[in-house]
Amino acid sequence: MEARSTAAKVLVVGGTHGNERNAAWLVESWRRHPARLRRGGLALELVIGNPAAHAAGRRYLERDLNRCFHTDLLADPGRRELEVDRARELLDRHGPAAADPCAVVLDLHSTTAAMGCCLVVYGRRPEDLALAAALQGRLGLPIYLHEGDPSQSGFLVERWPCGLVVEVGPVPQGLVQAAICRQTSLAVEAALDLLAAARRGDLRLPPRLVVHRHLGSLDLPRQADGAPAAVVHPLRQHRDWQPLAAGDPLFLDPDGVSLPYRPPPELEGEPVWAVFINEAAYGEKGIALSLTRREIWPVEEGWGRALADLAAGLKGEEQLLPPG
Amino acid sequence: MEARSTAAKVLVVGGTHGNERNAAWLVESWRRHPARLRRGGLALELVIGNPAAHAAGRRYLERDLNRCFHTDLLADPGRRELEVDRARELLDRHGPAAADPCAVVLDLHSTTAAMGCCLVVYGRRPEDLALAAALQGRLGLPIYLHEGDPSQSGFLVERWPCGLVVEVGPVPQGLVQAAICRQTSLAVEAALDLLAAARRGDLRLPPRLVVHRHLGSLDLPRQADGAPAAVVHPLRQHRDWQPLAAGDPLFLDPDGVSLPYRPPPELEGEPVWAVFINEAAYGEKGIALSLTRREIWPVEEGWGRALADLAAGLKGEEQLLPPG
Repeated sequence: MEARSTAAKVLVVGGTHGNERNAAWLVESWRRHPARLRRGGLALELVIGNPAAHAAGRRYLERDLNRCFHTDLLADPGRRELEVDRARELLDRHGPAAADPCAVVLDLHSTTAAMGCCLVVYGRRPEDLALAAALQGRLGLPIYLHEGDPSQSGFLVERWPCGLVVEVGPVPQGLVQAAICRQTSLAVEAALDLLAAARRGDLRLPPRLVVHRHLGSLDLPRQADGAPAAVVHPLRQHRDWQPLAAGDPLFLDPDGVSLPYRPPPELEGEPVWAVFINEAAYGEKGIALSLTRREIWPVEEGWGRALADLAAGLKGEEQLLPPG
Repeated sequence: MEARSTAAKVLVVGGTHGNERNAAWLVESWRRHPARLRRGGLALELVIGNPAAHAAGRRYLERDLNRCFHTDLLADPGRRELEVDRARELLDRHGPAAADPCAVVLDLHSTTAAMGCCLVVYGRRPEDLALAAALQGRLGLPIYLHEGDPSQSGFLVERWPCGLVVEVGPVPQGLVQAAICRQTSLAVEAALDLLAAARRGDLRLPPRLVVHRHLGSLDLPRQADGAPAAVVHPLRQHRDWQPLAAGDPLFLDPDGVSLPYRPPPELEGEPVWAVFINEAAYGEKGIALSLTRREIWPVEEGWGRALADLAAGLKGEEQLLPPG
């Protein structure tokens, strides 16, 4: 069968950030006992994203791996940070142009913010939107649509033809919690089911998609020396996906004074929803929370066709060579 | 006044572990604006325990600072790990024999376990038990009595004549949360009030003290290669301070099978209470949770006298030299 030689796998990545342990725990468990994962009949590649950072228990060693997937950066032979090299290696081994390619990637993350189980979509590729819409239809997951933010770019999933981030929280860094693992594996199994349906040509998409479009991020108030001058207000902590109105308590200063949300000029009068509130890893990026706009989109027919075309090229488990 | 030259301060330490940010945030805020802390009229020394690890956002760089305070280790000139040197420096500057000594230390920690706000007492020094009993009487804080565990020793507070750990959770590492800061500062302010009362000679202790005595710790089940073979059971997660009976679900394996609590032989038939369930930093120490026995002790008169004698030597704020 001609298709076999070029048919692609689904890449499932855990531990892209070395201190996010839940997905890495799952990936290691699935590698040891593949039957533990309902694969929907698809051939998978199960990978620890950043093994060196995972071993060190740190988000990254030299550079955030999930900000390394810029084509320019990867093509620059002078850039040899450990994570840039790892990004190249992942693409060489499992990228869409690899000898044994992957066409879809699920990149599994966790967060200290109370995001629940959700999807992060980068940009508006029809394949991504189709898979996200199908997952939202199946499991009700909220979707954070990350686009138009030049300060945050180079994400892993962008280098594969179709890819989503599954993000689950709240969970501390460095810790495995059973409930977080369960939520993650439910999302992965549903995604594989839906990709298998798309491969068979019988994926049904819901009529609408609810997205939370990234508008921008807010930093903590800062002192002259750059140190934080306040913390996230206790009434805002753990309130991800909830609307934030002008005047709502947002930060709390050390004297106990509430600092209310004041919309930046470009968002004046605009209803916003907050996400990634007080994510531990974003402090260094100057992000205390991000602001989104909630939108309801009709699902376009072309999305489902694009995903079906892509999924038709996916390899089934039965096409895997026996080991050895 | 003769006493002035030898009168001692109270040492308040945050950031003994560099990724526990809440107390460090408080200490920095109190140093900047001392009036933010109700000091009970006492002269304080406010210190970041491990500034290098704090700057790196890691628990420690070379060795856990809060396991470095062994007299033998500190006296060994061959041991020059960064944290061992820092322990020596803290003692040289603020120890009981320093030129400007501290006689009491409050060491402020946070945990990913759902411990609430609690006290950790090391051993049975009467001064510590008096202060812990007074704090429990004032705020109802549970007390974890850590003793008789040769695998866990060298704690900071042990090198001062009186010292308690204030431990607050759950909070992720690397993160400041307003509610955690509030719980921590309430405990510190109450402790300073009570020490001031002891200094005036009018500290009243409650008649009884409830302690949870350390009995031992349990590791996760492990595979032959040392990797974890299970996680903390979701019904056990966040259930710190609650009783654990033989047969209760304790761990969950990757196939979803519950592994019940089986008491070790020496604890057969003994009711136990679990603490520090799934603390992120204890994975490397092979501790998934610790087991304690709940005991109700009569408060001994000698404890209050011992604390009053010590507190009589504390310096008041009015004895501080004006700055400059």
